[in-house]
Amino acid sequence: MAFKVEHLRINYKTLEEFNKFREVGLQELSMKDELESNMVENDSDSPFYGIYLGNKLIARMNLYRRDARFDLYFEPAQDYLELWKLEVLPEYQKKGYGAQMVEFAKSFGLPIKTNPRVQSHDFWQKMGFEKVTYDMERDRGENPLVWYPEGVTEQKH
Amino acid sequence: MAFKVEHLRINYKTLEEFNKFREVGLQELSMKDELESNMVENDSDSPFYGIYLGNKLIARMNLYRRDARFDLYFEPAQDYLELWKLEVLPEYQKKGYGAQMVEFAKSFGLPIKTNPRVQSHDFWQKMGFEKVTYDMERDRGENPLVWYPEGVTEQKH
Repeated sequence: MAFKVEHLRINYKTLEEFNKFREVGLQELSMKDELESNMVENDSDSPFYGIYLGNKLIARMNLYRRDARFDLYFEPAQDYLELWKLEVLPEYQKKGYGAQMVEFAKSFGLPIKTNPRVQSHDFWQKMGFEKVTYDMERDRGENPLVWYPEGVTEQKH
Repeated sequence: MAFKVEHLRINYKTLEEFNKFREVGLQELSMKDELESNMVENDSDSPFYGIYLGNKLIARMNLYRRDARFDLYFEPAQDYLELWKLEVLPEYQKKGYGAQMVEFAKSFGLPIKTNPRVQSHDFWQKMGFEKVTYDMERDRGENPLVWYPEGVTEQKH
């Protein structure tokens, strides 16, 4: 594909682009506060990745590396990625951008955990993600899906 | 109000009632599996509470008591309740049932954490819930709201 997944910068332009996405919440407000109070530099690295078409951000996701000591999902326990807020703007959906984002996440070679809406489970299953065995203490009402790289299996509880 | 909040039983009737609610996912599937494989008794206690009108379950929520050693939200650190899947069936909304459920949760006298959809934040604020200071390591894209009983404040990180 012609357009690459880029690591986004924290700046007012990025936050303005974020307002077009549906899942805007406390995290984005917090990024704005940090910019305004100079707790982060304008143009610092963010945990977000995205795809630009020209100047327009049309897809984004948050990737966050969790330390192995918090790993309750994978065997052997190891560092893994949590992926959230994967979203492609409506008029750009069904064109492979979401899949490209997920492939980018997989390219780190780490297991991935995500907690998508139930309605999107078909997409995630096509991308090779699987259900975990529900554990109330760990999952607390979530519907987590995980991706296992070769040699990694489900952690049993 | 005439109808009281009841502790729900895990049985096939309850699971059938659950199918009317929007947020049905891995947790409910797991309860069904447990019933079918006799891992739980038909009529065991569930983590769900609800309101019946006659034989019909019209509201439900999951309440789960987390141990103080996992508490990253409250000062002093203490046991707290996680509340999820609060839902009132559409034709019974705006009649105070949701508020009654939340008041029931508060009646345990423990702090409460929930992670509702952003669109429902007005309801939660009316119920006395407040935003936390976003912490990516802890909150990972969530929009948690909390309720502080008297003498409890936000845990600082």
